[in-house]
Amino acid sequence: MEKRALIVGGGLVGSLWAVLLAKRGYEVDVFEQRPDPRSAGFIGGRSINLAMSTRGWRALEKAGIESRIRPAAIAMYGRMMHSVEGELTFQPYGRDGQAIYSVSRGGLNIELIRIADSYDNLRFHFGQKCLGVGLDSNTVYFESVDTGVRTSMQAPLIFGADGAFSAVRRSLMKLPRFNYSQSYLEYGYKELHIPPKADGSHAIDKNALHIWPRGNFMMIALPNIDGSFTGTLFLPFEGEGQAFEQLQSSEQALAFFEAYFPDSLPLFPDLEHDFRTNPTSALATIRCSPWCYEDKVLLLGDAAHAIVPFYGQGMNAGFEDCSILDEMIGQYQDDWTAIIGAFNRERIDDGNAVATLALRNFVEMRDLVADPLFLLRKEIAAHLQEKYPGEFLPLYSQVTFSHIPYSEALKEGDAQEELLSRILSLPGILHNWKDNPEVDAIFRLWQRERQG
Amino acid sequence: MEKRALIVGGGLVGSLWAVLLAKRGYEVDVFEQRPDPRSAGFIGGRSINLAMSTRGWRALEKAGIESRIRPAAIAMYGRMMHSVEGELTFQPYGRDGQAIYSVSRGGLNIELIRIADSYDNLRFHFGQKCLGVGLDSNTVYFESVDTGVRTSMQAPLIFGADGAFSAVRRSLMKLPRFNYSQSYLEYGYKELHIPPKADGSHAIDKNALHIWPRGNFMMIALPNIDGSFTGTLFLPFEGEGQAFEQLQSSEQALAFFEAYFPDSLPLFPDLEHDFRTNPTSALATIRCSPWCYEDKVLLLGDAAHAIVPFYGQGMNAGFEDCSILDEMIGQYQDDWTAIIGAFNRERIDDGNAVATLALRNFVEMRDLVADPLFLLRKEIAAHLQEKYPGEFLPLYSQVTFSHIPYSEALKEGDAQEELLSRILSLPGILHNWKDNPEVDAIFRLWQRERQG
Repeated sequence: MEKRALIVGGGLVGSLWAVLLAKRGYEVDVFEQRPDPRSAGFIGGRSINLAMSTRGWRALEKAGIESRIRPAAIAMYGRMMHSVEGELTFQPYGRDGQAIYSVSRGGLNIELIRIADSYDNLRFHFGQKCLGVGLDSNTVYFESVDTGVRTSMQAPLIFGADGAFSAVRRSLMKLPRFNYSQSYLEYGYKELHIPPKADGSHAIDKNALHIWPRGNFMMIALPNIDGSFTGTLFLPFEGEGQAFEQLQSSEQALAFFEAYFPDSLPLFPDLEHDFRTNPTSALATIRCSPWCYEDKVLLLGDAAHAIVPFYGQGMNAGFEDCSILDEMIGQYQDDWTAIIGAFNRERIDDGNAVATLALRNFVEMRDLVADPLFLLRKEIAAHLQEKYPGEFLPLYSQVTFSHIPYSEALKEGDAQEELLSRILSLPGILHNWKDNPEVDAIFRLWQRERQG
Repeated sequence: MEKRALIVGGGLVGSLWAVLLAKRGYEVDVFEQRPDPRSAGFIGGRSINLAMSTRGWRALEKAGIESRIRPAAIAMYGRMMHSVEGELTFQPYGRDGQAIYSVSRGGLNIELIRIADSYDNLRFHFGQKCLGVGLDSNTVYFESVDTGVRTSMQAPLIFGADGAFSAVRRSLMKLPRFNYSQSYLEYGYKELHIPPKADGSHAIDKNALHIWPRGNFMMIALPNIDGSFTGTLFLPFEGEGQAFEQLQSSEQALAFFEAYFPDSLPLFPDLEHDFRTNPTSALATIRCSPWCYEDKVLLLGDAAHAIVPFYGQGMNAGFEDCSILDEMIGQYQDDWTAIIGAFNRERIDDGNAVATLALRNFVEMRDLVADPLFLLRKEIAAHLQEKYPGEFLPLYSQVTFSHIPYSEALKEGDAQEELLSRILSLPGILHNWKDNPEVDAIFRLWQRERQG
């Protein structure tokens, strides 16, 4: 088959995938609705910073640009919880310096486009809105955002990396027996700017992901390289309790922050302005199957599996799609019938699993991290990891610091929760869980049950 | 507000709902894509016979046409299971003559349109395809199937009763935060005709729903008033085991029936022809929320909750939507802001519950009904119902012979399963479950736990 591919979407996943295909010797055309961010500036579709972790870094290594991104990434070694009283509690994400990394969506996208442009066999077409795919003729239809002129292009391979509201997926939806779901949280989010201090440094500890957990809602903040933070408030749209609909005036917003996030007020000099002018955005989980049409069309990234942001895995999952596909090109020697078949068969479970993990982690972040018993579970899990290396890897580490398939991590995490519940039901365990032979006995029994 | 409504869809739910609104004094316009079935003959979208049960009958009573439908309905008092060897096992659905009723979709629809037409304040418009709804202008757009002429109509109230592939719902999908899922079974179905005997009578017991349960697949047959039966084969589309894709030739189809349904072969004189010419259709579950737009647009029936057919509740659930809405008109005195709000708040859980019940019942019908332990559970459940009237109503009876909300029935059914598992774990219970004081003790304990 002719080694030629068309990619719809030049965001993070689309431009990374273009690089990997170009490296494999494919002729690649990428069509992106937005203007070229190198000249026009980056127009973000979603939150402006992202948490890069192990799965994402591996894909950047494959593309050969990890070293260009590292210097602009800020290590976050754990969660810093802010209580209403302003007390800080730090909870590490991993061990031995393991961290997740705050990176700028726009900066990363521009860097990916720059590296892509260094390949002669790769072309970007900006300002081209995808209107749909003619599945049987391998044709993609476009309209110029500037001129309205309509064009089309044929290619033997078509990739839909065009995000949560994918036009490629919309064409697949017309197929018989296509499974699809879009499910919105009853929460919205609003981004709020924390500027640097007068000396240019970060106003709070830059090497942590800050969380203000408040049970039914929360605020978080991630550091940016320019000394600022991006704060994000997650709050129900409507309802009896605290909700965006009840924060209509600047006075109401201010009173809400004074009541629930008093220690953050000095960080937000423009709170009232930002609150009024920044949009309140929705949060969706999108699942579908199949992700392909025959051996011609394949969805990847958010187009295949859009998830809520609470595990910091959206971009990482999309980048891992690219890593896996790239490895399959080698494994199946460019046989796309085999590659698309295998990817569609093996990867959908992982897309569903990371969606579930992300939804669960919202409860963990906004509520459980303020619960002493939950924190004890985390401590016991870390203790087991220490004591039984290679036998016990906490769920968070599996998701964030490993390449274990998400679907396996989800199952393992459920088994771990069951183990920790058994341990916590031991009498007097709260004061006596370290070097407790009963804990070891339960762990060994749990291991045997799983192997049997 | 002006008492005027537009209904998209003149199928079973749309025409019943039109009658109920007309009885309440509303001016009603019904737009239906298909031609008038009274002159053109009925063009079925789905299976040709249906199982009417208590929820459906109540709605027909409200519309005043129960007495017109009863004579053409055939009582099915239970399931008749056919083993591979041709052995028959009968399992009653309820007690004291309780039955579900096989009715003809076409006959019922025509009867509903006839009664509707007797109202001066109700008009049918056939051959009008809905193109969508202008939500903010309360406008519905149509195209004539015959002439292609496009028209539109405004109405203060718009009801989408236009089925699983609803055009009204498609317009709601464009709203922000609209939740939607379409999920297909990996099974298809094919209808096969069982003609009457030479003397015009039914070839097998007409007062039962016949099932040929075969574990991973099944066939069923429902009686028709003309002496025929409609057989339906449910089988995976693809796969390693038995599947439609492996029954390409007439010889393969015949060999399949000889191997798995030998006692049915004499019933199907045209098996090879029917198998070749009748379509293999897909089975979807469709869920969405909200079911409304403000106090203007409301979905009901399959447009709101399309389910698989295995509990015989699709039409019954749609008719119950109409009963509930009709009662709400009285309760809220035509205040549609209150009615649509309450219906959307209270009924979606029931739509989701009946979808879940229908999916679960497929496993029961194709597999469990051939399992002696499952049949024992049913017997013990019937025994508890007998012994503790008013305290134990089996799930099937709640769904089929009561007006208990589906969501409550689903919860109660799960609790009952747990009770039956406890009872079946008693030593020696298989030979000793009648008049066993331990069974009574467990039942009493279970009751107390639920009340406490």
